[in-house]
Amino acid sequence: MAPGIPNKKKTDEQSSKENFIHLCNPHLDKMKEDILYHFALGTGTHDFPALFGDVKFVCVGGSPSRMKAFIVYIAEELGLGSPGCDYPNICAGTDRYAMYKVGPVLSVSHGMGIPSIAIMLHELIKLLYHAKCSNVTIFRIGTSGGIGLDPGSVVITRESVDATFKPQFEQVVLGKTVIRSTNLDEQLTKELMQCSIEIGQFHTVIGNTMCTLDFYEGQGRLDGAICLYSEEEKLQYLKEAYDSGVRNIEMESSVFAAMCNLSGVKAAVVCVTLLDRLEGDQISSSHDVLVEYQKRPQKLVGYFIKKSLGKV
Amino acid sequence: MAPGIPNKKKTDEQSSKENFIHLCNPHLDKMKEDILYHFALGTGTHDFPALFGDVKFVCVGGSPSRMKAFIVYIAEELGLGSPGCDYPNICAGTDRYAMYKVGPVLSVSHGMGIPSIAIMLHELIKLLYHAKCSNVTIFRIGTSGGIGLDPGSVVITRESVDATFKPQFEQVVLGKTVIRSTNLDEQLTKELMQCSIEIGQFHTVIGNTMCTLDFYEGQGRLDGAICLYSEEEKLQYLKEAYDSGVRNIEMESSVFAAMCNLSGVKAAVVCVTLLDRLEGDQISSSHDVLVEYQKRPQKLVGYFIKKSLGKV
Repeated sequence: MAPGIPNKKKTDEQSSKENFIHLCNPHLDKMKEDILYHFALGTGTHDFPALFGDVKFVCVGGSPSRMKAFIVYIAEELGLGSPGCDYPNICAGTDRYAMYKVGPVLSVSHGMGIPSIAIMLHELIKLLYHAKCSNVTIFRIGTSGGIGLDPGSVVITRESVDATFKPQFEQVVLGKTVIRSTNLDEQLTKELMQCSIEIGQFHTVIGNTMCTLDFYEGQGRLDGAICLYSEEEKLQYLKEAYDSGVRNIEMESSVFAAMCNLSGVKAAVVCVTLLDRLEGDQISSSHDVLVEYQKRPQKLVGYFIKKSLGKV
Repeated sequence: MAPGIPNKKKTDEQSSKENFIHLCNPHLDKMKEDILYHFALGTGTHDFPALFGDVKFVCVGGSPSRMKAFIVYIAEELGLGSPGCDYPNICAGTDRYAMYKVGPVLSVSHGMGIPSIAIMLHELIKLLYHAKCSNVTIFRIGTSGGIGLDPGSVVITRESVDATFKPQFEQVVLGKTVIRSTNLDEQLTKELMQCSIEIGQFHTVIGNTMCTLDFYEGQGRLDGAICLYSEEEKLQYLKEAYDSGVRNIEMESSVFAAMCNLSGVKAAVVCVTLLDRLEGDQISSSHDVLVEYQKRPQKLVGYFIKKSLGKV
């Protein structure tokens, strides 16, 4: 069942070396055991290479039920597992995150916001390291607010920018602010765009993604419990964002890009837009419409994985 | 079942007026309908005054299962509901947050980190406002890392401070940083301390709580996927925190205090410490020990609610 190294046409770079996880932490090798507390997994209790050694694609998203739906979808697409079979939550010992696996694909929930996804990524990167995984690609598949796009459009992130439209992430380390790059893999972005053209089912653009620390005031919404600015100020801010190249707003991409960068893991962010923020703030589409929208990043990344494995 | 206004001995201030939620948003009254998207509730589809109008105490915490356990516990303590009866998740239409209610007590999960609890609080404060609730007290009951305290100690927060030990919260609004106060109710803190003395089952202190945006580098851990500082630098930082009055570290108290302040809601933060960060970084106590620790804030706040309702 486990396919090992993907059977895809390799580029020169990929065939010349295996990319292992780069762990930026000299302290870790001194530890006898590593407890990944928020996954309820540990190197003393779980055989990471046996459980996860064949992982090549990791998909992360906010909602646990969406990440479960993704593993069912990708299992079917890849012809792995039998129809209707259940995928147990690997992190069943905690309700902080949910994790599912089929063949070379791992699907993990990360909750909402930079701190929540950062905890998950610290433990995920260590998991992949302990498992001796190589040539891993990580995708964030999520939801977002669009700017100047029809709802349901998919944005593949060129650069993740902060609330002042700069492509950077401010990490506080021991009380001091450190600036980190939010670069994403340009080639991977282009390959995903090509996949969307081949699928031909929904509108997809490559654009900048603004990553904020807040859903209401941080994104200029008028419908939070606190709002001390006018509609004109809101629209001016969103138009400035648009003019700087921002096409959607979410709450996790900057730390995701920064941490994957530092760990030497190829990464991409693919989010569907649930509304056009130039038209409003409330997410008022019907449940069924929203459910269909949320499948689009799954379809796009699913197609990419299939293609990478030579199954398209 | 619904007790209306708590039957406690009222102070002059409380008996002279009812404290309604103060909504710092002039735009909201212009909206025909308000969809609380992350709760899957809306004023057009749910009768908020009927569902929530009698709420006087709201307890929030990170983990959905812990918040369900709390509603079962408090129902039993208050003699409401029958033993073994189930409490449905009011937010069953989404997996972003979980919400439970019994009598005057609402229990809501908030995930991990400032952005995650902030989304929940925006929608919770609007919920209480739409429901026309009055004289509400909100408690965060959570877990934390202690500094210089035995694991299992409970900290009632005097002031929530940032990573530089200042009692403030930086909110980014339309790309600009605004500083907000993280004041908590001093009288409520003292009353909670008195409750802990009356219970007499675990060590409790009043101290400052440091609220960080990150669990690993932000809290000086040596066991994350990224760590570019030494053990000496870590210990120096934690000792500086201790010397400034910090007794525990968590990831939600600052925005919790700031938003409750602005909305005119009495609030307190009660967290148990799962480890002493001067001794290590990994949470390695046994599952059973951690489960018992996590019940302590529930016991303390549960006792306070019972006492407020004249049931002690």
